[in-house]
Amino acid sequence: SVNPDLGSERQTASFSVERLTALLDGGAEQTRIRRAVVDAIESDPVFSRENQYFQTQNERYEAAVRKAVHLQKKMHEMGWTENGPEYKYIYRALSGDVAFLLHRVFMRSISVLGSDTQIAKWIPLATQHKLIGSYAQTELGHGTYLQGLETTAVFDTATQEFILNTPKISAMKWWPGDMGRSATHTVVFAQLYIHGKCYGIHPFIVQIRSLQDHSLCPGITAGDIGPKMNFEHIDNGYLLLKNVRIPRENMLSKFCEVRPDGTYVRQGSQKINYFTMTTVRISLIADEVLTPLMKACTIAVRYSVVRRQSKLKPGEEEAKILDYQTQQEKLLPQLAAAYAFHFVNDYLQELFNRGYREIQRKNFDMLPELHALSSGFKAVITQHCTAGVEICLRACGGHGYSMLSGLPSLYTKILASCIYEGENTILLLQTARFLIKCFMAASAGQPVPPSVTYLAAVKHGKCPAKNKLDFLSPDIYTEAYQHVAVRLTSNTAAKLQDLIQSGVKKHDAWNQCTVQLVQAAKAHCHYIAVKNFAETVEKLETKAGIQKIMKHLCDLFALHGIFSNTGAFLHDGYTSAAQMDMVTASYLDLLAVIRKDAVPLVDAFDFTDKSLNSALGSSDGQVYQRLYEWAQKSPTNQMSPAYERYLKPLLHNTLSKL
Amino acid sequence: SVNPDLGSERQTASFSVERLTALLDGGAEQTRIRRAVVDAIESDPVFSRENQYFQTQNERYEAAVRKAVHLQKKMHEMGWTENGPEYKYIYRALSGDVAFLLHRVFMRSISVLGSDTQIAKWIPLATQHKLIGSYAQTELGHGTYLQGLETTAVFDTATQEFILNTPKISAMKWWPGDMGRSATHTVVFAQLYIHGKCYGIHPFIVQIRSLQDHSLCPGITAGDIGPKMNFEHIDNGYLLLKNVRIPRENMLSKFCEVRPDGTYVRQGSQKINYFTMTTVRISLIADEVLTPLMKACTIAVRYSVVRRQSKLKPGEEEAKILDYQTQQEKLLPQLAAAYAFHFVNDYLQELFNRGYREIQRKNFDMLPELHALSSGFKAVITQHCTAGVEICLRACGGHGYSMLSGLPSLYTKILASCIYEGENTILLLQTARFLIKCFMAASAGQPVPPSVTYLAAVKHGKCPAKNKLDFLSPDIYTEAYQHVAVRLTSNTAAKLQDLIQSGVKKHDAWNQCTVQLVQAAKAHCHYIAVKNFAETVEKLETKAGIQKIMKHLCDLFALHGIFSNTGAFLHDGYTSAAQMDMVTASYLDLLAVIRKDAVPLVDAFDFTDKSLNSALGSSDGQVYQRLYEWAQKSPTNQMSPAYERYLKPLLHNTLSKL
Repeated sequence: SVNPDLGSERQTASFSVERLTALLDGGAEQTRIRRAVVDAIESDPVFSRENQYFQTQNERYEAAVRKAVHLQKKMHEMGWTENGPEYKYIYRALSGDVAFLLHRVFMRSISVLGSDTQIAKWIPLATQHKLIGSYAQTELGHGTYLQGLETTAVFDTATQEFILNTPKISAMKWWPGDMGRSATHTVVFAQLYIHGKCYGIHPFIVQIRSLQDHSLCPGITAGDIGPKMNFEHIDNGYLLLKNVRIPRENMLSKFCEVRPDGTYVRQGSQKINYFTMTTVRISLIADEVLTPLMKACTIAVRYSVVRRQSKLKPGEEEAKILDYQTQQEKLLPQLAAAYAFHFVNDYLQELFNRGYREIQRKNFDMLPELHALSSGFKAVITQHCTAGVEICLRACGGHGYSMLSGLPSLYTKILASCIYEGENTILLLQTARFLIKCFMAASAGQPVPPSVTYLAAVKHGKCPAKNKLDFLSPDIYTEAYQHVAVRLTSNTAAKLQDLIQSGVKKHDAWNQCTVQLVQAAKAHCHYIAVKNFAETVEKLETKAGIQKIMKHLCDLFALHGIFSNTGAFLHDGYTSAAQMDMVTASYLDLLAVIRKDAVPLVDAFDFTDKSLNSALGSSDGQVYQRLYEWAQKSPTNQMSPAYERYLKPLLHNTLSKL
Repeated sequence: SVNPDLGSERQTASFSVERLTALLDGGAEQTRIRRAVVDAIESDPVFSRENQYFQTQNERYEAAVRKAVHLQKKMHEMGWTENGPEYKYIYRALSGDVAFLLHRVFMRSISVLGSDTQIAKWIPLATQHKLIGSYAQTELGHGTYLQGLETTAVFDTATQEFILNTPKISAMKWWPGDMGRSATHTVVFAQLYIHGKCYGIHPFIVQIRSLQDHSLCPGITAGDIGPKMNFEHIDNGYLLLKNVRIPRENMLSKFCEVRPDGTYVRQGSQKINYFTMTTVRISLIADEVLTPLMKACTIAVRYSVVRRQSKLKPGEEEAKILDYQTQQEKLLPQLAAAYAFHFVNDYLQELFNRGYREIQRKNFDMLPELHALSSGFKAVITQHCTAGVEICLRACGGHGYSMLSGLPSLYTKILASCIYEGENTILLLQTARFLIKCFMAASAGQPVPPSVTYLAAVKHGKCPAKNKLDFLSPDIYTEAYQHVAVRLTSNTAAKLQDLIQSGVKKHDAWNQCTVQLVQAAKAHCHYIAVKNFAETVEKLETKAGIQKIMKHLCDLFALHGIFSNTGAFLHDGYTSAAQMDMVTASYLDLLAVIRKDAVPLVDAFDFTDKSLNSALGSSDGQVYQRLYEWAQKSPTNQMSPAYERYLKPLLHNTLSKL
């Protein structure tokens, strides 16, 4: 039975939840396929996540391997293929809780970097899981800065082999997933040396464990790097190479080849490589970043209409905590952000698909823009969503802090997205570099990519808003965001120029501007996110209340951003203090409006109770019962040796019932 | 041997590290005592925290009980007493990793709320650990709002007993520490009913487990609430009462008594109760909030001078990441905040001691101010420090995400401080209520407590700074903070008045202002923190470079606050855009200055390697070796059944070495 405090929230929805779900999925047919996949996975006990919060790291790893192996059978059984429409929903349905993800990266790297012969040899073996692959790039001492990697691969013409070594401890491979315990093979990135000359970083296929008994191969030291904040199910590993010999054929050689005599040959364009990073950064947004935020919002919003605490008015019943303005101000902007970034993701996907088509026609013109946008948005979205999940967790008070709420795991997992696939600050600086370049070009009258043409149009006007309702006009707020982005970019460009002209070396000058460059890059992405949301709303169907509620969320997303960052808008007087008070008023008004639809808005994300795996957030709102039921199953309710060992000797002197 | 990249940082300290440590400790003699305690604890293997990151929740609990029991022996052996100068350092030396903390709360509640007879009976038993106590206040459905608690205690005149019940699931006690597995007794807060009339919440001593065999007493259901984000060592518990009968004498009756005939008698003033919450909020700041931030800063700063990544200048060696402006901007403001809040803590302690003396003279005048300041600062400091630890974690990239860095545990533990002992938003609103009240009083010419007299002096001037160096003047920035605090308080008071005058009901009006009230409360605390830091610096010894470096940190703390919140200062034109640019310039300049002393500044916190328990932060900077050594000990490097069960069947089809 549904808790009436939750049930009543659903009766007043201003829009059709089912239609909004279809919009998020990209059509009702997609919704149907997704639900079928989720059903199939969740009804299979092998994929169960029950009791997950009670498992040790070892148990989590074992379960993830079990699921990965079972998934192959399941796909076969269900007729799902890697190119089928179901495929993209599988990972989400498993909540990512499965091994051998790096096996897929291993395969992709061979497909992209390998020669046709190499592809023909390795891909079928990998596809049939006759080996388990990993991808060994990061080292103890080097992450983002690939050129600094220290592992070496020396070509030995005599034996036609590469000799791989870890010259010092900081060169040890560290972090690769699936490598700590599972992998038999890995792609190792190493500095290539031929006849004493270094040719830079290249990829090599290296076998690390025996296919017979899984023992480590000669010269290999490998293991698991131990506990992490999350990802207990993944065996992130370390790898130390000591004179490991591999055949010449094991260097992935689509772009570079070493001939038998040691001649180094570079062939084709490597620009496509550059594109791979972009692909990964865009592809992680939906599953690794948006889904956790949407889950956190679902949990926190549902809990906030079931939890009652204190009285808003004396004499009345205790109030639902979502009726407090401060609680609304915590949660509703996160909900708006989840929708805003969902649409940004659509935008990036579309841009990416266009870019991909161009690249296949050997036109690489879109790459810089695509790289800048994917880097910037990877950083901005992961940062924003991580903060959002944390806000949801804290907004649930003590119960949010229990693992059984599901929120701690969502938080500790999404946090990693700020670090992996490019550390966020470094990515933002790459976006900033692009912005500065484009700003200079635009100022000089040269053409620039579409997303940055606005930089050319530096206007010194004022915000025309006259009353608080004007701030519900997308033109008004989008232009304000644009103004800020232009100002931050142009001011930082000017500072950079000034420093250089005053004699500061170029690299020092850049370093002295980086805090402000990061601000400019964020403002650029924020502007595009707002603009994109507004444009998306414009095109939505007006039926079933969809456009109306999305317009509210778009306004909230935009005004929350201004309210949280007033200085950027006030700085040069574009927005006046009086206008800022209007923003605040409109923003706070909106909270009360959207609060009414809060539950339907999270229901539209369409998570099953099993996928939420939360004692606070399930669709029936029976929070307290579930917390109690789940807690009783905890291993901490088994007998502890602490009683016999320590407590009994203390207490046995107490004579009787006191 | 010390990593030279770390060692070189220590040779250029601009101040005496030892003197700064003494300043933080409150004198060289205190430093000596603290070190003696730390030595004694850390040299005792029973207290070891080695391998802690590999332990399960059950193992952590057992270890915490073992340590708690051993601590009694140790104290006896060392001659440490609860009133001795060593006592306050014990908990810090154990990093809080010990059981029976709630046993102490149990004892304190009896001392404060119990009659002389009750104290005489229970305190000796508790002191000798002939029972283990807990404190059962929070329920599944009620935390901060105590009046809402649902547990009942009905007086039965016939048997002279109270009958305790948990009338519904939301009334179950939930969270009390030491209750899940250890406690034999607990203080239960319940609604008292006599002859059908409710007299509100009262405390009752209830035995929950047998002293003979530790089995649950009749009518008691109790257990552990399961996994949490941290505090694995604590057995937070649940408790369900079914017709549990306790003698009349078990109601703690210093302030209220139930006579044998059921007459309810209230005696004495309960104001002192109010003071207890204040005590707890202030007492947790040092150990639970500042220490974790100081540890996180120590780890992140040391790692940032050992980690090299990318090149600042082409052709040079890779740069220490602390040489990047963006890294400085992440870490150094956290360092400044740690010092700022250390001094706020001194200020609160002093205020508290003064308040305590007054209360003993039956003068309760200081209570409202003390309550407002302790609530506001509890919220502001926990929030700021939690965010600070997270920044430190992220600033260490992937290695920060490893449990072995120590940062994840620091984060997941400090996060709880935002929730316990009063949820932060609620506390800030209590401070805000005080501010509004005082602002109204001050406006009407009535006297107000010292910390808020500034509210009376609403000035409409402008910031007088003329160049960036002016912003290194404490008068200039302190006044700017004061201006913002006054503006936010007076504006919100005005909005509240307007709403009420326009017919909005008082409680609705309050709710509609709460987002802004929270801002005002934060601004008030921030102002006092800045002012207090500036005044502290003023009084410091000028010798040994101490005052100079503290002045830099004070400036950084103040300017970081303005830089991160420019809108508040720009809003009404008190600070102009040109002045804000000066703030930015001064702020960024300061980063480069303080960066030089970053390592000495964290060294001054004087944490031992054992207490940091971090592979990244130890005093010798041998990061990579330690990560590798520790990882090898992880249980994830033992054989997993996953190989035989799942991997072998997959791989056995692969015929030979590929």
